[in-house]
Amino acid sequence: MEIKFAKMHGNGNDFVIIDEFREEVVKEEEKPKFVRAIAHRNFGIGADGVIFVQKSEVADAKFRYFNSDGSEAEMCGNGIRCFSRYVVEEGYAASPVRVETLAGIYELEVTKNEEGWWVKVDMGTPKFSKDEIPTKEDVWGKEIKIDNRSFEIYAVNTGVPHAVIFVEDFDFDVVRTGRAIRMSELFPEGTNVNFVKREGNKFFVRTYERGVENETLSCGTGSVAVAAVARKLGFADDKVEILTRGGKLFVEFEGEKAYLIGGASRVADGKIRAEELNYEV
Amino acid sequence: MEIKFAKMHGNGNDFVIIDEFREEVVKEEEKPKFVRAIAHRNFGIGADGVIFVQKSEVADAKFRYFNSDGSEAEMCGNGIRCFSRYVVEEGYAASPVRVETLAGIYELEVTKNEEGWWVKVDMGTPKFSKDEIPTKEDVWGKEIKIDNRSFEIYAVNTGVPHAVIFVEDFDFDVVRTGRAIRMSELFPEGTNVNFVKREGNKFFVRTYERGVENETLSCGTGSVAVAAVARKLGFADDKVEILTRGGKLFVEFEGEKAYLIGGASRVADGKIRAEELNYEV
Repeated sequence: MEIKFAKMHGNGNDFVIIDEFREEVVKEEEKPKFVRAIAHRNFGIGADGVIFVQKSEVADAKFRYFNSDGSEAEMCGNGIRCFSRYVVEEGYAASPVRVETLAGIYELEVTKNEEGWWVKVDMGTPKFSKDEIPTKEDVWGKEIKIDNRSFEIYAVNTGVPHAVIFVEDFDFDVVRTGRAIRMSELFPEGTNVNFVKREGNKFFVRTYERGVENETLSCGTGSVAVAAVARKLGFADDKVEILTRGGKLFVEFEGEKAYLIGGASRVADGKIRAEELNYEV
Repeated sequence: MEIKFAKMHGNGNDFVIIDEFREEVVKEEEKPKFVRAIAHRNFGIGADGVIFVQKSEVADAKFRYFNSDGSEAEMCGNGIRCFSRYVVEEGYAASPVRVETLAGIYELEVTKNEEGWWVKVDMGTPKFSKDEIPTKEDVWGKEIKIDNRSFEIYAVNTGVPHAVIFVEDFDFDVVRTGRAIRMSELFPEGTNVNFVKREGNKFFVRTYERGVENETLSCGTGSVAVAAVARKLGFADDKVEILTRGGKLFVEFEGEKAYLIGGASRVADGKIRAEELNYEV
């Protein structure tokens, strides 16, 4: 059996897209096994996750997201950008796209320019209070010492807790330092940690991600956290450019509300030969 | 620009195939940069290597192999199997296929049965002498102790040096033990190390690979080494089935010559959108 697919990524977070908008392609009970086979980097196509595009009763389309281990997840910020571009590009809906997910309905604006496709997502209002982040005490410019070096921490919640730290250079161990701050008793639920080097209105960001427990190529909520802190400190206005190892992102503010604008690349299209996949993986 | 591709693997060693049999698709000087972009697991399709199928003046087709870092390599055992299936499946040549490589001309038999496509490769005659392997002294049933455990080593050269060790179970650290043997002064040029569990005429093999300096999914010359040692010890006849973590392989002997028969899976076909690739990786 041949199955149509697209390979896409949002800032290096990569996905195989399976189109079930017109009809079911992979039976519901076989999806986890199929996902593990096709997401395997050696035996399949390889991806961080697999997205099924389905029809929705309540929105323009339904987003079904599976991790590479076959488990279903409620939402994926980079994934829903790729999904939205796909839905617009295939002509299933026009921008703004309303997307049904297990975490509710999201509205996304899809545009295209000479640099590629961009998708704008409402990220809500960043929260700065101690109880909402949460932090043990006020963490705004608080100095802490790691490996005999001082870091000034600003805390914010943009969906998950974030620590933002401005640095002159990345001449220290980002993973080791990030992990120490993530484990600090200042953050009772832990935190993501963003190290930021400022160059005018551009911010180079490297993020240690809680859960992954390592540095990630790019973090959407981290980019919003950096922009929100920079803006509050007067380092940035309402339009902020964020550069990550996974690529460029923009954060825009309308009042206190933050919007994340990120790319969605579609690098290949084709057909999977389902009978040649290895389902034992 | 759209570029046709196939994603294939031989025992989990995976490749992107680019078809230049009729015409050049990626300019010669741009190949390394293109390879790095398309072989990247997150920003591209992802593969261990990229194979270009080209016309040959001296054989049926020409095999050009690039590692994922953009460097060109002379040969790749798993890669040439995938290449040969591709050439037969596309109708460019009939089996046996004569393939031009930077390491000379190879002849490969391509067949298909209900289990998939199989490619038979001449692996030459295994060498057992001390000087040809090379080993410091005769290593045939030699006992050595690692972490207070005894291992009986048989040495052979099947293109590269191999140590073969029969075990009752894999209840020890394959990487740690393999590395200790690979570093042993018995092997002045180092060695690959194969741990083998025998079940009748089937051999389960786990290989520590020199150069990779870790366990690999599957090793072609290691499979031949295991079969050659098992046959010489009277554990196997002229047809041997080898099971690796990457899948099944067969080794057949005609006189003292060894042939390796391995699968070649083609999991997807499609088109790359060259303008959406990230060439900065």
